[in-house]
Amino acid sequence: MAMIAPSRRLRRTPFSEGVEAAGVKGYTVYNHMLLPTMFASVVEDYRHLKTAVQVWDVACERQVEVRGPDSARLVQMLTPRDLRGMLPGQCYYMPVVDETGGMLNDPVLVKLAEDRWWVSLADSDLLHWIKGIAYGYRLDVLVDEPDVSPLAVQGPQADELMARVFGDSVRAVRFFRFGWFRFQGRDMLVARSGYSKQGGFEIYVEGGDIGMPLWNALFEAGRDLDVRAGCPNLIERIEGGLLSYGNDMDRSNTPHECGLGKFCNTATAIGCVGRDALLRVAQEGPVRQVRAIEIEADSLPPCDRHWRLLDGDRIVGRVSSAAVSPDFGCGVAIGMVRMTHWEAGTALRVETPDGMRLPARVRENFWV
Amino acid sequence: MAMIAPSRRLRRTPFSEGVEAAGVKGYTVYNHMLLPTMFASVVEDYRHLKTAVQVWDVACERQVEVRGPDSARLVQMLTPRDLRGMLPGQCYYMPVVDETGGMLNDPVLVKLAEDRWWVSLADSDLLHWIKGIAYGYRLDVLVDEPDVSPLAVQGPQADELMARVFGDSVRAVRFFRFGWFRFQGRDMLVARSGYSKQGGFEIYVEGGDIGMPLWNALFEAGRDLDVRAGCPNLIERIEGGLLSYGNDMDRSNTPHECGLGKFCNTATAIGCVGRDALLRVAQEGPVRQVRAIEIEADSLPPCDRHWRLLDGDRIVGRVSSAAVSPDFGCGVAIGMVRMTHWEAGTALRVETPDGMRLPARVRENFWV
Repeated sequence: MAMIAPSRRLRRTPFSEGVEAAGVKGYTVYNHMLLPTMFASVVEDYRHLKTAVQVWDVACERQVEVRGPDSARLVQMLTPRDLRGMLPGQCYYMPVVDETGGMLNDPVLVKLAEDRWWVSLADSDLLHWIKGIAYGYRLDVLVDEPDVSPLAVQGPQADELMARVFGDSVRAVRFFRFGWFRFQGRDMLVARSGYSKQGGFEIYVEGGDIGMPLWNALFEAGRDLDVRAGCPNLIERIEGGLLSYGNDMDRSNTPHECGLGKFCNTATAIGCVGRDALLRVAQEGPVRQVRAIEIEADSLPPCDRHWRLLDGDRIVGRVSSAAVSPDFGCGVAIGMVRMTHWEAGTALRVETPDGMRLPARVRENFWV
Repeated sequence: MAMIAPSRRLRRTPFSEGVEAAGVKGYTVYNHMLLPTMFASVVEDYRHLKTAVQVWDVACERQVEVRGPDSARLVQMLTPRDLRGMLPGQCYYMPVVDETGGMLNDPVLVKLAEDRWWVSLADSDLLHWIKGIAYGYRLDVLVDEPDVSPLAVQGPQADELMARVFGDSVRAVRFFRFGWFRFQGRDMLVARSGYSKQGGFEIYVEGGDIGMPLWNALFEAGRDLDVRAGCPNLIERIEGGLLSYGNDMDRSNTPHECGLGKFCNTATAIGCVGRDALLRVAQEGPVRQVRAIEIEADSLPPCDRHWRLLDGDRIVGRVSSAAVSPDFGCGVAIGMVRMTHWEAGTALRVETPDGMRLPARVRENFWV
């Protein structure tokens, strides 16, 4: 494995100082920003995440702020999910598609007010798409990237740690809702959300200057909870079936292929770009779809490219994320499988880049 | 320094196999793709680049293909550079700006035909912007990312090596022009261009399958020329004043601040998005601008964030790229300086993140 070469283009975050002090060992790049991938080891981080509480620098989940009289029209243009019932204080996971129904991003939409939204991004410059649409349609909106850097608190002890820093009322925040909480005289948006299945919160930290004070306060308050620096964990997120844009899906996939059909209200999401294409898909259904794939393996190479899924010598799909799970004692993977082979229980083989063909099986559900 | 964590999201290239076999030691991520940053060492790579010939995997310079009846209108909307005189066979460096005149990318535009163009990208998803504009204006165009991966051949022996693989006629290709040359039965677009001042070519390789055969043919043919795997070299590109999008400029900068005013034909580039804003800038001139900065230093930390440029305790600019130059025996840097202090010869101090304040000087020109 090679080193990552530092440069300003790979942006540091308001929490980088804390991440470095905690001994980060691996990085990836996400929205032109550094995202930690490992502290102790992926397995040790995984065990700790499932039993204690971690603080994650996910500043790379950049926001696009959409504000102004036409903002509601613009955000509805971005997604086939019907946003009419959405209230301020809610977060919606939403597929964003282009005119052909191809996935451009799968952000979380945060509704701050009737005319103010944050689009909390996965890894692509969706800002460019939103600005392009706003410009082309001459919409009366402001579209920009604000100085907002999410910090996640994840794990079974997340409620306890957050209550110590923000007060007990933070426990009352419901899933995919948010509230405003005070820290050192600043109001912070705190949502119950995050890229793990262990539960927790995301704090949308406005203003880089308050980043390290908050980081330090969380570690101070959680010393007896064994709080540690963590990051989205490859094994845990695959077990939980959390898709990763750029890994498990890209512009060549429709939301339906990604198993996101339930977020497509194509009949009622009036004005959505790509609606015509998706109406067709909604009628006919996709011919391939995301599935949980179990692999018989004690060890696996990093999944840095598609691995072919085979029935004999016939290619019937591909794996896009994979790791060995200590808790389930097998390889856990996310794949895209053709409809001829996507039934739960179907036996396949997966071919890794070194030419190994390992037994694999389509599962009904992910592991959690 | 930390490791880079492999995943499919950080895309491999058609040349990755060759890059790994050549012993790549460092990577950055560019347009969601791996870009090597170091083989032997940055200094050794630098010396070799200036004396011999290198083959660079710059597949990360992704193309946006724009095709169809409205394609000329669309590409002119992207840039304040007047494209009316551009002919098929030419390459134009062009600033791309948003409606406020802020830089979105600084690609090379390749004109394949009157109705077919490649926009060869710096590091941002300009595809989203171009698709958004095309959709908003209902233009009759196709906009997509084709399977085209540039491979650069750079260094004083580039002509000799290229002639051995593509024939002597490749020597006749002029700067920022291209021609079509045959390799193993395939036509390849070869331009005289590249991200160094040592001269050379970029081969726009269509179809990933022919990547490694071409890579191997170049190494085979250049054995006695000491051909090596290389990459854009930090020291050499700063010496040469080659700006890097995301490092030396971003959306907050106008082309004029970046010293790209000569590519802004704001009066005649009719239809350019951001023209109103840039007309204003063109009249008044920028209040800060890119400058070559010489630093008195034998060693420098990696420039992974802005370094402040100071006159006493007053901030008068910032450095965005820096390295120590063996050939010039000083720190070489690219900075943005306020007009009060941008005259050649102005003495300043540069503050590195460890708190050191080093003597620095504004130069008239870059080093080559």
